[in-house]
Amino acid sequence: MNTTKVKAFGTEAQDADLIEMMIERREVQPKDVEIDILYCGVCHSDLHTARNDWGGSQYPIVPGHEIVGKVTAIGSEVTKHKVGDTVAVGCMVDSCRTCSSCEKDLEQYCLNGMTGTYNSPDKHLNSRTYGGYSEKVVVDEHFVLSVPENLDLAAVAPVLCAGITTWSPLRHWNVKEGSKVAVVGLGGLGHMAIKLAKGLGAQVSLFSRTPSKEQDAKDLGCDEVIISTDENQMKSSMGKFDLIIDTVPYDHDLNPYISTLAIDGTLVLVGYLGQVKSLLNTVPMILGRRAVAASVIGGIAETQELLDFCGEKNIVSEIEMIDIQNINDAYERMLKSDVKYRFVIDMKSLK
Amino acid sequence: MNTTKVKAFGTEAQDADLIEMMIERREVQPKDVEIDILYCGVCHSDLHTARNDWGGSQYPIVPGHEIVGKVTAIGSEVTKHKVGDTVAVGCMVDSCRTCSSCEKDLEQYCLNGMTGTYNSPDKHLNSRTYGGYSEKVVVDEHFVLSVPENLDLAAVAPVLCAGITTWSPLRHWNVKEGSKVAVVGLGGLGHMAIKLAKGLGAQVSLFSRTPSKEQDAKDLGCDEVIISTDENQMKSSMGKFDLIIDTVPYDHDLNPYISTLAIDGTLVLVGYLGQVKSLLNTVPMILGRRAVAASVIGGIAETQELLDFCGEKNIVSEIEMIDIQNINDAYERMLKSDVKYRFVIDMKSLK
Repeated sequence: MNTTKVKAFGTEAQDADLIEMMIERREVQPKDVEIDILYCGVCHSDLHTARNDWGGSQYPIVPGHEIVGKVTAIGSEVTKHKVGDTVAVGCMVDSCRTCSSCEKDLEQYCLNGMTGTYNSPDKHLNSRTYGGYSEKVVVDEHFVLSVPENLDLAAVAPVLCAGITTWSPLRHWNVKEGSKVAVVGLGGLGHMAIKLAKGLGAQVSLFSRTPSKEQDAKDLGCDEVIISTDENQMKSSMGKFDLIIDTVPYDHDLNPYISTLAIDGTLVLVGYLGQVKSLLNTVPMILGRRAVAASVIGGIAETQELLDFCGEKNIVSEIEMIDIQNINDAYERMLKSDVKYRFVIDMKSLK
Repeated sequence: MNTTKVKAFGTEAQDADLIEMMIERREVQPKDVEIDILYCGVCHSDLHTARNDWGGSQYPIVPGHEIVGKVTAIGSEVTKHKVGDTVAVGCMVDSCRTCSSCEKDLEQYCLNGMTGTYNSPDKHLNSRTYGGYSEKVVVDEHFVLSVPENLDLAAVAPVLCAGITTWSPLRHWNVKEGSKVAVVGLGGLGHMAIKLAKGLGAQVSLFSRTPSKEQDAKDLGCDEVIISTDENQMKSSMGKFDLIIDTVPYDHDLNPYISTLAIDGTLVLVGYLGQVKSLLNTVPMILGRRAVAASVIGGIAETQELLDFCGEKNIVSEIEMIDIQNINDAYERMLKSDVKYRFVIDMKSLK
């Protein structure tokens, strides 16, 4: 298959900085959309994959799965998008399309394994997929989303991962006007969870370990901040929440939060992959039909629904824009949670 | 308030055998139903409460919350039942009736605390509630169920606790024709879970640690027995079940079962109260939106629904009938799982 070389930023090894490199993009196929990338959000997964924190990284790694851009070419059978459209690509660029998950628009749970936007086997080229830290990307139209024109395009980028990761559980667990939602952790995911839950009409609380985030949370629309280290505040929140979106990306004790769930409430983990070292106590669960669940990103139809919702409610991420040459510094700052709340790369800097 | 003395079997201390004693039942109030107890099932909770295994036992304890009997008197305002009706009482004899749980027919999750059939504060007498190991009981009609006349009345008794404890999660998590359900543990709860899930049209598997239970499980209608200590059998069950009803009453590792859940599947604990010492791994949960939940008994409307379903499908418990004088031996045998699958006391033996 013919390919075109494009500029990208990636890394050749887990202990190496990201540097400029050339990668190949496939020739546009009948169902393909070619996208000139304008902005790409910077997700913790980018850093984890670049540094092989989860294992399984195959180098070079070109991260980036919060992509916003303009369509520059389409294949002969494309019907969803046309040249000049503002579009987006999130965490997936393919899936089997035939399994029971794909048939239910749950491509993120494809039983044959969805194709990640980076560090996945590329079905077309004999190589790996490369992400959005690059000039262009070519993606099957099914995995290309439409972006409402009224939104700030740079600030839309994080909606594609941080946004959908919190939107999908909000929708799956049926959050609506008057629902009581709590968010654990105020970072990229947490700040989107607050905005989206508020957008759906929920009463939203933030659990925070320190009072320092109170004003920020309220600025984002949060109704209440509960200091999770304050026993009295935790006690007075017992039995309150229909849904808790737990965005904390490291191991932590779930039991104090479970006790704040209402009858039939669910705590859904979206940030932490691994073993929970604090022992789960079944008593508060059994006495209120409470559940602990976990969720990853969202399906394509659901992501389009989210973008449309953001367009209608004028919701975008809070971002700090960077040039791609500053990506290695941004990773270091991200590790210190020194960003409100998401870095977005201005891809003009790569031209 | 006037009371009547009735014979009962109970215990005066956590280390004492159950012996015959006299207890008081209140005079029938306008909303009350007086029941002559014919049969009472023997539940693990009876033993745990008699021996104060969970703390909180206030002596004397008269256990028994799987009660079947005949109505012998009704109050002036009773409309649900009449003298001569075959009725049943389960794990609750009262709740606040006004909280959001009670309003949703979830009396078992009453926010003000449901009144247990035994070892709860009695709202009418200045004492504790006493259970079904007794000649008679007086219960508000709201908590008295109707028993279909076609069923074996002794074998209905365990439906009131073992049955509803498994029925409620089967219904809550929407098990229907073709659902794939697994049951962990083949005891009082497990054998009812198999029968009820089959009754709902599900494909039912049993997880068992040893092959010895295979024939028993199949006799109960189980489609498949998976030996949980056999790695290959566990591997070939990965991603299979929509719902797992885990009836095991002691601490055990949940992770191997979680991996056998389908996308959006739930493992619901109904047997174990306490800390789970094996660390929960979030990875299989996050990669399939899998959940761990827990559930206790069921609401009154749901229990009536279950009894009606049992009548229609001719489902009852497998029981071994005992005289009440043998209750202490039965407790010892229950501790060794030496019963298929539930003891039921023939209350004629107390007359």
